[in-house]
Amino acid sequence: MSLPKQITIHEVGPREGMQIEKNPVSTQDKVELINALSECNFPEIEVVSFVNPKWVPQMADAEQIVEQITCNPDTRYTSVYLNTQGMARALAVKKLHVEGSLSVTASETFSKKNTNRSLEETLQEAQRRVEALKTVGISASEVSVMAAFGCNFEGDIDPIKVLTLIDRLMDIAQQNDELIQTIQLADTMGWANPLSIKNLVGMVQDRWPAKTINLHLHDTRGLGLANVIAALEMGVDDFDSSVGGLGGCPYAGFKDAPGNVVTEDLVHLCGELGIHTGVDLDRLLEVSIMAQEIVGHPLPGKVMRGGSLPVYRRFLGINPASESKR
Amino acid sequence: MSLPKQITIHEVGPREGMQIEKNPVSTQDKVELINALSECNFPEIEVVSFVNPKWVPQMADAEQIVEQITCNPDTRYTSVYLNTQGMARALAVKKLHVEGSLSVTASETFSKKNTNRSLEETLQEAQRRVEALKTVGISASEVSVMAAFGCNFEGDIDPIKVLTLIDRLMDIAQQNDELIQTIQLADTMGWANPLSIKNLVGMVQDRWPAKTINLHLHDTRGLGLANVIAALEMGVDDFDSSVGGLGGCPYAGFKDAPGNVVTEDLVHLCGELGIHTGVDLDRLLEVSIMAQEIVGHPLPGKVMRGGSLPVYRRFLGINPASESKR
Repeated sequence: MSLPKQITIHEVGPREGMQIEKNPVSTQDKVELINALSECNFPEIEVVSFVNPKWVPQMADAEQIVEQITCNPDTRYTSVYLNTQGMARALAVKKLHVEGSLSVTASETFSKKNTNRSLEETLQEAQRRVEALKTVGISASEVSVMAAFGCNFEGDIDPIKVLTLIDRLMDIAQQNDELIQTIQLADTMGWANPLSIKNLVGMVQDRWPAKTINLHLHDTRGLGLANVIAALEMGVDDFDSSVGGLGGCPYAGFKDAPGNVVTEDLVHLCGELGIHTGVDLDRLLEVSIMAQEIVGHPLPGKVMRGGSLPVYRRFLGINPASESKR
Repeated sequence: MSLPKQITIHEVGPREGMQIEKNPVSTQDKVELINALSECNFPEIEVVSFVNPKWVPQMADAEQIVEQITCNPDTRYTSVYLNTQGMARALAVKKLHVEGSLSVTASETFSKKNTNRSLEETLQEAQRRVEALKTVGISASEVSVMAAFGCNFEGDIDPIKVLTLIDRLMDIAQQNDELIQTIQLADTMGWANPLSIKNLVGMVQDRWPAKTINLHLHDTRGLGLANVIAALEMGVDDFDSSVGGLGGCPYAGFKDAPGNVVTEDLVHLCGELGIHTGVDLDRLLEVSIMAQEIVGHPLPGKVMRGGSLPVYRRFLGINPASESKR
């Protein structure tokens, strides 16, 4: 098994998780969660989304959250925005790294439900976004395909369709002299499995060998970490995940459907495989319990319940298996 | 990715799950759960354990359960017993397939805690068990190593130690003219990861190429299905699992530690990979919700929350991805 020596983990719990919680979470709790995550040494934390509070009231306090957090100088703080108004809000709060991302959903039906735009309208929006980014001096560096493996409303997504959409976004970037560094594939509704991960990742690598592939995986059907392993075996070294497994899937048809891959379980797995993440697992496990207390219901994380193997080994005074093997 | 075309799943929820539940579960509920599982066409269901009711009061009604269940002629009903008294009880109820299994724990400390025997005493017990089995005309067909990957009390287990223990059990079988067909490796406390699975399975395959390897995996740290994939890639086609993820780990130090690999999530995964299990997933998903109601607390199964992809595809009128790929 050939695996990367290190990976980059983007913590998305504060944004993706908080956005879906039914019970109100106070601004102070959100700030404290982000501050605690900042102590875990993530390279990046996605803290809020700048979206219409009419549709996502949970994120109405986005500006206040950003103003109040204490930043770790080694961590990049990012946000999600869907249009130029959102981008302007992200730029107005000075603490954030505002990224230029061009995104599209591989399912027409889901695109309309989630963003109220057809695929063609989304591609036109990408063109407008590049122009808007240019006016404020930000480059577009990422293209992203949501529902890249399947969709609850359209079923399995043909990988060729995903490649075609990436191509269209790449064309828009190129025509505007933008250099895309990262291709994000998002399994928004948890349709991927290890075979489809290897298949699509392989096709994207063949076509764009120099780009970083980021995977945004959901654990909707329990395959989150199995899909991570499949991706690691393909050399993917860039992942999104969510502390405690915060989040869910509003389209799953079941209100307690599992959310993103659980960050601490991913960090723990990497530790066992000898893959460096830079994340402080001990502190992160405390934060996952804190996240559970904040939302007031059990989160799906396993290691927070089963106990971390490094803690057992330290207690027993033995070296990690991965150290003796490598 | 080369995978088996079909696998055998041993449902162990009624035994392993019920044995650990804190709240009392009525005999009638246990019987109804087993009867519902019988409608899912498992090749085997492990229904009870014949152990001392002083230590495991949850299994005091083992005989009554077996007497009351309605058997599916295509399913084998098995039990767990730890000594000759237990074996006699298993034989006395006529409906069960009583197997001759020689088992040992790879951790001396855990062996003493779990069975009150040292490794050497366990190996002596294996010799006595072969003799006892012979007197009732049952062959020893399986050897089993518990805590084969690691132990909360001893840490990582050296694969060489596991091979040595299997060797000792194989010797006992051979000296008594018994033909072992299956080698079971149990990750009792959830220490395995995809690398250690491939490593130990490979070593066992090299040494005993003609034997079936059965994996009894726990999802204590969220790696259950990732470990299944690693094993499938090694050609392993025999797994234990538990409906809903019934069960837990009394030694995990956290009372709600996750239990066995979740049967319906495993069956669902196999369906996505085009691997035949013979198990009726639709019925099984109903049974997993029933199991959750019986124990009165959430179970860790994901597909029961996220929804089964075959159901989505049927609703959308499309063919499974695996069919179009194979």
